Amino acid sequence: MMAKLPGLGPRSAQRVVLQLIKKPAVLMHPLVETLSRVAYNVRECLVCGNISTAETCDICSDVRRQTTEICIVETVADLWAMERAAVFKGVYHVLGGTLSALEGVGPNDLRIPQLLHRIREENTQEVILALSATVDGQTTAHYIADQIPERSVTFLAQGVPMGGELDYLDDGTISAAFKARKPI
Amino acid sequence: MMAKLPGLGPRSAQRVVLQLIKKPAVLMHPLVETLSRVAYNVRECLVCGNISTAETCDICSDVRRQTTEICIVETVADLWAMERAAVFKGVYHVLGGTLSALEGVGPNDLRIPQLLHRIREENTQEVILALSATVDGQTTAHYIADQIPERSVTFLAQGVPMGGELDYLDDGTISAAFKARKPI
Repeated sequence: MMAKLPGLGPRSAQRVVLQLIKKPAVLMHPLVETLSRVAYNVRECLVCGNISTAETCDICSDVRRQTTEICIVETVADLWAMERAAVFKGVYHVLGGTLSALEGVGPNDLRIPQLLHRIREENTQEVILALSATVDGQTTAHYIADQIPERSVTFLAQGVPMGGELDYLDDGTISAAFKARKPI
Repeated sequence: MMAKLPGLGPRSAQRVVLQLIKKPAVLMHPLVETLSRVAYNVRECLVCGNISTAETCDICSDVRRQTTEICIVETVADLWAMERAAVFKGVYHVLGGTLSALEGVGPNDLRIPQLLHRIREENTQEVILALSATVDGQTTAHYIADQIPERSVTFLAQGVPMGGELDYLDDGTISAAFKARKPI
């Protein structure tokens, strides 16, 4: 089982398990207890798909967040990344992945129906697509934008990342940054 | 001497030297010959600072390049990165580094006086600052922009790099990409 965890191969899994068995009081029991607490209490927020211990997550139930702006992210990790940047004061919607023709992921495999319902029900003024700058991420972004032509849809700017040096950037990024160049 | 090259420590330098001595005909002599040819023939382009075998480099002497657009880069490596992206059809100006208060690099230590002279003499319509998104790079960009208030000055867009996934980006880049978000 342990070897199925990401980043652990058969040998490192074996080392982890032996270590757990060797120290039951300080490792094994606390781990089992914490995991079972998480397993029983943590669930998806019914509104946005963030992880939560209640029916709606801390962000969705925070009255200071503007519900008129919805930021679409792929995963909970991306939601956390946006929160770390502390630049967005609206609410989120976690898709749970991206559309992918190769892997057979369609709109109904993601939380896209819920999103479209939510956008129509709530008084949404801006939909911000904070998806990866990958092929699948951009396909998903355009699919969603096409479904809600009546809303203002924006996406994150593409360009040189902070601290980025030209020599280490790929051609696509340099091209995008050049084409989107702005007056100083 | 060999150990002073970037990426070579004392031990790897010793290995290189011993290998060179061991194979004089296939390694040592060709290397010496090539290096001496480079040393005597390669110099800075008098116009832009690119490396060149003539007084003006291939780009500056190419009549198809628009001399009305000057792209400012820090190093020749950055110029090559821009050329690889194949998105810019104007001419370049290589600064030779960035302003740096810490390292005591002032405008006259870089090719900034030549740049200002060049912009005034030539019929420059757009100055594109393709400098690193680092503190020194941006300081240099603003210094140059302040010197030529009468010209159109642009800089590369900042944002998510190609293939960039939010979870792996720093907060500053996410912030910049969010603030510069655009309608789809």
